[in-house]
Amino acid sequence: MIPLVCPTPISTRDNILLGHGSGGKLSAELLRDIFLPAFANPVLAKLEDQASLDIGGTRLAFTTDSFVVKPLFFRGGDIGSLAVHGTVNDLAVGGAIPQYLSAAFILEEGFDITALRAIADSMAAAAAKAGVTIVTGDTKVVERGSGDGVYINTSGLGRLRDGVRLSASFAQPGDAVILSGSIGDHGIAILSEREGLELETDIASDSAALHTLVDAMFEASPMAAIRCMRDPTRGGVASTLNEIAEQSRVGIEIVERRLVIHSAVRGACELLGLDPLYVANEGKLVAVVAGESAEAIVAAMRRHPLGVDATVVGHITGEHTGMVTMRTVFGTSRIVDMLAGDQLPRIC
Amino acid sequence: MIPLVCPTPISTRDNILLGHGSGGKLSAELLRDIFLPAFANPVLAKLEDQASLDIGGTRLAFTTDSFVVKPLFFRGGDIGSLAVHGTVNDLAVGGAIPQYLSAAFILEEGFDITALRAIADSMAAAAAKAGVTIVTGDTKVVERGSGDGVYINTSGLGRLRDGVRLSASFAQPGDAVILSGSIGDHGIAILSEREGLELETDIASDSAALHTLVDAMFEASPMAAIRCMRDPTRGGVASTLNEIAEQSRVGIEIVERRLVIHSAVRGACELLGLDPLYVANEGKLVAVVAGESAEAIVAAMRRHPLGVDATVVGHITGEHTGMVTMRTVFGTSRIVDMLAGDQLPRIC
Repeated sequence: MIPLVCPTPISTRDNILLGHGSGGKLSAELLRDIFLPAFANPVLAKLEDQASLDIGGTRLAFTTDSFVVKPLFFRGGDIGSLAVHGTVNDLAVGGAIPQYLSAAFILEEGFDITALRAIADSMAAAAAKAGVTIVTGDTKVVERGSGDGVYINTSGLGRLRDGVRLSASFAQPGDAVILSGSIGDHGIAILSEREGLELETDIASDSAALHTLVDAMFEASPMAAIRCMRDPTRGGVASTLNEIAEQSRVGIEIVERRLVIHSAVRGACELLGLDPLYVANEGKLVAVVAGESAEAIVAAMRRHPLGVDATVVGHITGEHTGMVTMRTVFGTSRIVDMLAGDQLPRIC
Repeated sequence: MIPLVCPTPISTRDNILLGHGSGGKLSAELLRDIFLPAFANPVLAKLEDQASLDIGGTRLAFTTDSFVVKPLFFRGGDIGSLAVHGTVNDLAVGGAIPQYLSAAFILEEGFDITALRAIADSMAAAAAKAGVTIVTGDTKVVERGSGDGVYINTSGLGRLRDGVRLSASFAQPGDAVILSGSIGDHGIAILSEREGLELETDIASDSAALHTLVDAMFEASPMAAIRCMRDPTRGGVASTLNEIAEQSRVGIEIVERRLVIHSAVRGACELLGLDPLYVANEGKLVAVVAGESAEAIVAAMRRHPLGVDATVVGHITGEHTGMVTMRTVFGTSRIVDMLAGDQLPRIC
């Protein structure tokens, strides 16, 4: 089991905070102090976003995610499409071909059935577009005040590509860090909807299925050149990079001016005191790849509609192990720590 | 797609009722009117409690269930052990060897971390006992008042036995209906806990993993002799039998005096005006088997600790297609309809 970055154990007197769902330090504590010790096994201990399994000689990826996003409908998507994209992406960045999804609904008494129908239709459309089939499901209903409209869990299954081996522990000094596009769009879209912000430009969530972008990356490079991929959702790019630095026991250096940040996202972040590096994305991936393959992979990504802004944003070093640093636009260097609290609750 | 038993479509002006989560008629309506049309595909249309899939030549069962039981801890179990047993059982009654589970938690802000630890430990113990591994997970947190402590989703994966073919549409006239033991224990245990009932005898939930009982049944008979198995949870034995009668287009006749009902359950049901046939079970199975194999299968079940009260409770007929009838202790016959409303919300 790999120790995570936070040294302070949770006191048994403590209660759950919103930050425990943030994807940052508190989430990591909960995992390290409660779930990993209880469920101790080598697959879970790898701390990947999906489990790699062997059943009857077939290699599979298996993943699960619950979606509690608020509001349920937002610019660029809704809880239904998000629930499909999130799980498809966890399979895709694990090197699997997404194939089957489950869909489990926790409905609140009084929820509007027309809204439920719209969400189910949106899930179906997203699944059809992503080439996955929803094959099993469940519905529970809780009393008014014990839920919030609808929560959705999707679990996903896919066949792992032959010979693929990806892990957040495989990054090596000299590797390049690729980001597939702009950051912070999903989080800011949700937040502006929730807070009724009037932004100069409307920002839409980037929610999308990334599996064909991943296909393009594998076609452009020897399989072993791709060390790991992650979709930087809760906790944003900063948390994802910190997890990779920690698990691979390497340093990561990124360059601020290479980050693509839409001006409306930048403006909203300044207004709200948020750092876009910590804001959630739902249609982006971070990849660590062999330095010599980076150019070919980025070129292939840029030919894909979801990768037109793909860029090498940094590299892996053997220095400051377990840490992420950023060369700022002012030429200084700063540490990019893991998200400490809960920047934006219920973002996915 | 097989039409379910309820002819009235849901009006688009309607809202979700607690009964939509009951496992009875309203649940069937929601499935028929919203989810099946949206997600239309042949696997889902089979309406089994698990999907049978082929991935890379390996036959798998895949299932999902969310657990919202209230209270979280009850005599005979807790939401953690229930979440393991429920999903293990859905795999087992589908003819699969349960192997892997996911675990996704929706926590309410303020929830006691000591309770969460107890639930995680209980899940781990139940999983170890059932021989399954929890390989992937997720945690979300919602604000105070948007949840109720903790909701858990488990999805499960298992390899299907070679050559196994089970379906609620395979029951044939002349087949026997086997029930593995007493009915109503789980529902009454939850209800008595929730309502603070003082029963003559304390009733514990029957929550248990049934996969080794299923193993014993397959060992005792030719594979094709077992037509279908179901675990009669929400909606109870009555709803399960109605689903089988409907999907196989047969009649089912059961005999009241062959039902095993603990006296405390019977007493509580009389007190509360409940019919034990509709009360949830979490450690029982209903099997439809070839008439000539019934005796051998029941004998094998009775040698298993979870099947000591296994009995042939009825048979399949070619008459009154799609209906379940019961010969009462008074010698009369009555129709056992599907659960109409929501007898007991949040029972699992």
